[in-house]
Amino acid sequence: MIEFFRNPARTAKPREAGLTHILDKGMSLSEAEGMIEVAGDYVDIVKFGWATAAVIGNLEKKIALFHEAQIPICCGGSFFELAFMKGRVDEYVAFLKHYDFKIVEVSDGVIQIEAAEKLRYIEQLAKDFTVLSEVGSKDANVVVAPSRWVKGIKEELAAGAWKVVAEGRESGTVGLYRGTGEIRTGLIEEIETQIDASRILFEAPQKAQQVWLIEHFGLNVNLGNIPPQEVISVETLRQGLRGDTLGR
Amino acid sequence: MIEFFRNPARTAKPREAGLTHILDKGMSLSEAEGMIEVAGDYVDIVKFGWATAAVIGNLEKKIALFHEAQIPICCGGSFFELAFMKGRVDEYVAFLKHYDFKIVEVSDGVIQIEAAEKLRYIEQLAKDFTVLSEVGSKDANVVVAPSRWVKGIKEELAAGAWKVVAEGRESGTVGLYRGTGEIRTGLIEEIETQIDASRILFEAPQKAQQVWLIEHFGLNVNLGNIPPQEVISVETLRQGLRGDTLGR
Amino acid sequence: MIEFFRNPARTAKPREAGLTHILDKGMSLSEAEGMIEVAGDYVDIVKFGWATAAVIGNLEKKIALFHEAQIPICCGGSFFELAFMKGRVDEYVAFLKHYDFKIVEVSDGVIQIEAAEKLRYIEQLAKDFTVLSEVGSKDANVVVAPSRWVKGIKEELAAGAWKVVAEGRESGTVGLYRGTGEIRTGLIEEIETQIDASRILFEAPQKAQQVWLIEHFGLNVNLGNIPPQEVISVETLRQGLRGDTLGR
Repeated sequence: MIEFFRNPARTAKPREAGLTHILDKGMSLSEAEGMIEVAGDYVDIVKFGWATAAVIGNLEKKIALFHEAQIPICCGGSFFELAFMKGRVDEYVAFLKHYDFKIVEVSDGVIQIEAAEKLRYIEQLAKDFTVLSEVGSKDANVVVAPSRWVKGIKEELAAGAWKVVAEGRESGTVGLYRGTGEIRTGLIEEIETQIDASRILFEAPQKAQQVWLIEHFGLNVNLGNIPPQEVISVETLRQGLRGDTLGR
Repeated sequence: MIEFFRNPARTAKPREAGLTHILDKGMSLSEAEGMIEVAGDYVDIVKFGWATAAVIGNLEKKIALFHEAQIPICCGGSFFELAFMKGRVDEYVAFLKHYDFKIVEVSDGVIQIEAAEKLRYIEQLAKDFTVLSEVGSKDANVVVAPSRWVKGIKEELAAGAWKVVAEGRESGTVGLYRGTGEIRTGLIEEIETQIDASRILFEAPQKAQQVWLIEHFGLNVNLGNIPPQEVISVETLRQGLRGDTLGR
Repeated sequence: MIEFFRNPARTAKPREAGLTHILDKGMSLSEAEGMIEVAGDYVDIVKFGWATAAVIGNLEKKIALFHEAQIPICCGGSFFELAFMKGRVDEYVAFLKHYDFKIVEVSDGVIQIEAAEKLRYIEQLAKDFTVLSEVGSKDANVVVAPSRWVKGIKEELAAGAWKVVAEGRESGTVGLYRGTGEIRTGLIEEIETQIDASRILFEAPQKAQQVWLIEHFGLNVNLGNIPPQEVISVETLRQGLRGDTLGR
């Protein structure tokens, strides 16, 4: 009866733009089912954060649940980095294939990988997976120059990444953001002059960050690292249904 | 066996004072059932925050669940404001009646409505609903003078509001509070000299705010925008069962 | 398939070191079942925070659930303190025995108890229970000298406490920590020169605190007041599976 309050410009599944990407830090089946029940239409990707997949007790059942709901899943980029450190990338890829993950994230937020080597991984993995590559450091003390962000994003898209994830972490206090959570607006403006924003997935765990990105790029901006319990809030911000963006 | 530790001065359902009002940002049925199981005796009103009702995937079942548990529900005031902006108040009211909402919230925290017009809505809606009207801005940059709060509250109660909600948002950083979450104690003291505090529902999402209000107004102060997972904490603060108020 | 990424130095249940101690603020049965499903191997103790046990609506069923899962439970130290204030310690102990709690927490974080009297309670309760005693104040304005921490810990272990809990609260802003959450490293270093760290359970609700303690004491440090939804994150920090400790 009240569907007419929704915004007709909002994209629908399967989305190429307007993605909402969820950070799952260890949801139970009941919580995952609840998220699908409440917000399934607005959940485009679920990331099993970092290498949580190696320890959670419900891995197989949770994978089956998201497969059944036709929600793509991936593991965090840190799992790729760990496998790289340990010389176990082949085993990691075999694991992803075994469980039919469609997406793999390739990042260098913690470790150092030479750019050329990262690009080779992207290129190679893109043959079997949809690749999300990530740029930006997880270390609050490392501030990467905007020109290096742009260069990395361009190269990684050229190598076959579907979208490039712009780092923000669970906290929203590194990468795109200052330690206070404030947005590095100059960085974002530099990126957008050179790259189609629909190819970027902006990690944006904090509401003020989500609001800024929606106002700046429009309701169908790609937003990542959204906590499961915030999907509805994000959707209402996109569609002009919450105070911060009301009626827009 | 340990019920004797509870505070006998605590009101019971259905309450006129000592209300705990919950902010539901998109709970699943399982989470809502869980809240009722753990804390049903202490949940007086559930607000489907802002206009989340327009997008959640479990609207009808969740309404049915709360009806069955005899817990009154309402939508956020922002939904009224959105309907007002769009010239759709009639449809919004029809929606509320169709689903048997007993409570409606009327606010002007985001948009500008002339005071006289807001009062007319309160008066009219009070014929069919229990009205919660809200005072205070959602904008951190707007600081409303205490005398204007008092005037608004008095007029809205006179127009038929059951309780007046004092703004704090989900964050507890506007309206009654400074940007840091600190309480505008002068404002509250001005209000209480002129208005019976049992007619005010204080939004108080942060623990320090809850503690202050309980110490200031007593255990049966009306507290709003409580996160579902904090109902038990709030109840223990009221009853002197948590460190901050232990044994009082 | 990816178990080899786990750290072989991690202890297994039942643990004497490497404890993860959970703060339950009022979990539903569904949430408790979810935690066991996802992270049961990493949950060593569940604390029903402060005196929440006196008001939650699912007390008996939740106790039964944790008993069945063989996860020891206790009530918060504040419940002991409340019983002490009210002259009802006998009833409190009878309640714990009736429901087959194996652990009791004895603290003086809110009230004043003479040291000798606290030690007598520890000694007496240790006959029937595993005793966790707690040191440190819940009041941010009370800063206890390191030498007094050390003295208290030594005496309470000598009196029969299994582990001594070092105060941090739910917030991680008192006791071991400054108001900002920063760790009082000098205090911790003073403690560790004189006491075996495996006898201390460090309340550490914030991620930065967990990381510091894991880096300082090793992956099998005892960590307390972990929110249920953070157990997996803590476990990955311990095992070198998250950015902050990746590959260690």
